[in-house]
Amino acid sequence: MSTLSVFMDVPLAHKLEGSLLKTYKQDDYPNKMFLAYRVCMTNEGHPWVSLVVQKTRLQISQDPSLNYEYLPTMGLKSFIQASLALLFGKHSQAIVENRVGGVHTVGDSGAFQLGVQFLRTWHKDARIVYIISSQKELHGLIFQDVGFTVYEYSVWDPKKLCMDPDILLNVVESKQIFPFFDIPCQGLYTTDLEEDTRILQYFVCQGFEFFCSQSLSKNFGIYDEGVGILVVVAVNNQQLLCVLSQLEGLAQALWLNPPNTGARIITSILCNPALLGEWKQSLKEVVENIMLTKEKVKEKLRLLGTPGSWGHITEQSGTHGYLGLSSQQVEYLVRKKHIYIPKNGQINFSCINANNINYITEGINEAVLLTEGSEMCLPKEKKP
Amino acid sequence: MSTLSVFMDVPLAHKLEGSLLKTYKQDDYPNKMFLAYRVCMTNEGHPWVSLVVQKTRLQISQDPSLNYEYLPTMGLKSFIQASLALLFGKHSQAIVENRVGGVHTVGDSGAFQLGVQFLRTWHKDARIVYIISSQKELHGLIFQDVGFTVYEYSVWDPKKLCMDPDILLNVVESKQIFPFFDIPCQGLYTTDLEEDTRILQYFVCQGFEFFCSQSLSKNFGIYDEGVGILVVVAVNNQQLLCVLSQLEGLAQALWLNPPNTGARIITSILCNPALLGEWKQSLKEVVENIMLTKEKVKEKLRLLGTPGSWGHITEQSGTHGYLGLSSQQVEYLVRKKHIYIPKNGQINFSCINANNINYITEGINEAVLLTEGSEMCLPKEKKP
Repeated sequence: MSTLSVFMDVPLAHKLEGSLLKTYKQDDYPNKMFLAYRVCMTNEGHPWVSLVVQKTRLQISQDPSLNYEYLPTMGLKSFIQASLALLFGKHSQAIVENRVGGVHTVGDSGAFQLGVQFLRTWHKDARIVYIISSQKELHGLIFQDVGFTVYEYSVWDPKKLCMDPDILLNVVESKQIFPFFDIPCQGLYTTDLEEDTRILQYFVCQGFEFFCSQSLSKNFGIYDEGVGILVVVAVNNQQLLCVLSQLEGLAQALWLNPPNTGARIITSILCNPALLGEWKQSLKEVVENIMLTKEKVKEKLRLLGTPGSWGHITEQSGTHGYLGLSSQQVEYLVRKKHIYIPKNGQINFSCINANNINYITEGINEAVLLTEGSEMCLPKEKKP
Repeated sequence: MSTLSVFMDVPLAHKLEGSLLKTYKQDDYPNKMFLAYRVCMTNEGHPWVSLVVQKTRLQISQDPSLNYEYLPTMGLKSFIQASLALLFGKHSQAIVENRVGGVHTVGDSGAFQLGVQFLRTWHKDARIVYIISSQKELHGLIFQDVGFTVYEYSVWDPKKLCMDPDILLNVVESKQIFPFFDIPCQGLYTTDLEEDTRILQYFVCQGFEFFCSQSLSKNFGIYDEGVGILVVVAVNNQQLLCVLSQLEGLAQALWLNPPNTGARIITSILCNPALLGEWKQSLKEVVENIMLTKEKVKEKLRLLGTPGSWGHITEQSGTHGYLGLSSQQVEYLVRKKHIYIPKNGQINFSCINANNINYITEGINEAVLLTEGSEMCLPKEKKP
């Protein structure tokens, strides 16, 4: 046998897995903690699944009337319709005007891949993308691969310890850039599904055209089936149909038919008022639980007498939020306490539970007290 | 609202759906027939599903111990192992030598997309691809999209009315081209699973490195979940790991995590001797049924006294086979009889059943008798 390989010039790839998760996995410390999971975790430390999903999955598998044939390239039509109504609201003017559509994709990565391929083909002069820092590792690669130059920006103001959406709006409102939104977990920010996508309604009302990756894996708990939609908003139906038809050709080459199982479960839930109610209730419980966790973290830091104001923890919505720590403090937590937190200090609060909250808050307290120069990034504690 | 669209230069795409299927769908004739479906059909005219799949799907949905978390980018490990053992045989020397591996993909289109992206990245000088005619419409687009020039070739000899694999081997054996096989439905050619992939064993034994798209959607009947693997055979384990690591990065950008449901069902079947036995039996029944259909077609043509020798119908294996008709005869069947057949005359024999066999064979008879010049492509009838 020849030992000369046609692959002889192919080197071992640099592992693309998040370096933080990689370091965490290699850490032998028994009480190590990872606070940067992408998905919502239960109090027991497992990815959360809405109970109504399990019930619906069972019902579907027992239904002899269903077929398991190929979906069209554009995907499951009823799934797209129901998901768009969820995203924009049933009475959205843009939906009524038939200028909103979508392609059912293999998860949110698939939605970004499809959108990026379209932009590469039809907007050849656009070569620069600004991506929000926390999403850069996940989605930046997709843009880079096809030749975009990727810049990152943050809407978190580390001095004021709050979100500053003006950073985003100021850039976009000049209409010189094309917005590509990411709605990874509608319903897991606040207890109000519509409130969670208010930014989209705003851009629709302002007459913007845009793409949006809508993922339904995380807010239903169907992680093993990437359930995504590339949403397209155009100025009119004619333009929308042109874009969708081009996307169909691109999706045909990418995967030809998207997977059905997750989309079928979600459609069954969204189109049945009783199941929909159960799903909304399950989301509400998750969000309230996260709010409670944040309250507890803040209270424990107060009881420990940790310097600084921690109100920003409870002021942020959703599973993920900034702790408002300096990079030295974050480094202290990772190195000395084996609590794995991204450099920007944004953690997944659903990773904190009764078993680890004391260790984590005590760690934060230590980090703040012992890290030199940490005061520089924190405002003085306000006396009530 | 601005009516100037950022999409204003985007035209409506040319529909990529097979033109034959498109014409068929637009045909109002009540007894129209489509004999070119990609998948195996039942006698009732529905896509075939192995009974053991339905049973396993139900078992899985009732198993509370299973989780629905993200699969790794490379996919379900046990699924890849079981599928590679099925493809090459458990005792394959290449598997023992750890130089065979795979990436779990979104169906066979996903496998081709991933493989093509790798070739574009690592074999920049290779710009020409030869693709078997019947697969050109389906997979040629993927190569074309990234800049390959696609030539088609056929292994069907229309004069001798038989397959001529030398056409393939003569080109490939010079080792100047890189083989990219497509095994879309192992077990649906002959009643012997190993026999169906003999060409792969041959290339492994000859020391070739190659890619292979292995699809498990059609031989299990799980169409709505593209269940595929991009198989890599390298000269040694070191080279294999390099290629797989690069493929992982590409798959990460394409879909990040492949869908689980179909792969989980298939793995459960392949790893359980009782279920495996049931699956093999179901395949055997399908293949025997197709053989019977071909016998009946041949017999009916004999009884009708249709000129020509029709032995080639039963000499071919699998769901798809050449009728051995001239292009005029095919055109006659499509135009006059509303029997939709691709130009090369290759049909899916599982589309023929008790309800339509008479109409089809009578149509073929008419086409042969009435089409001028048709004798030119057919050998003289041999008297027994």
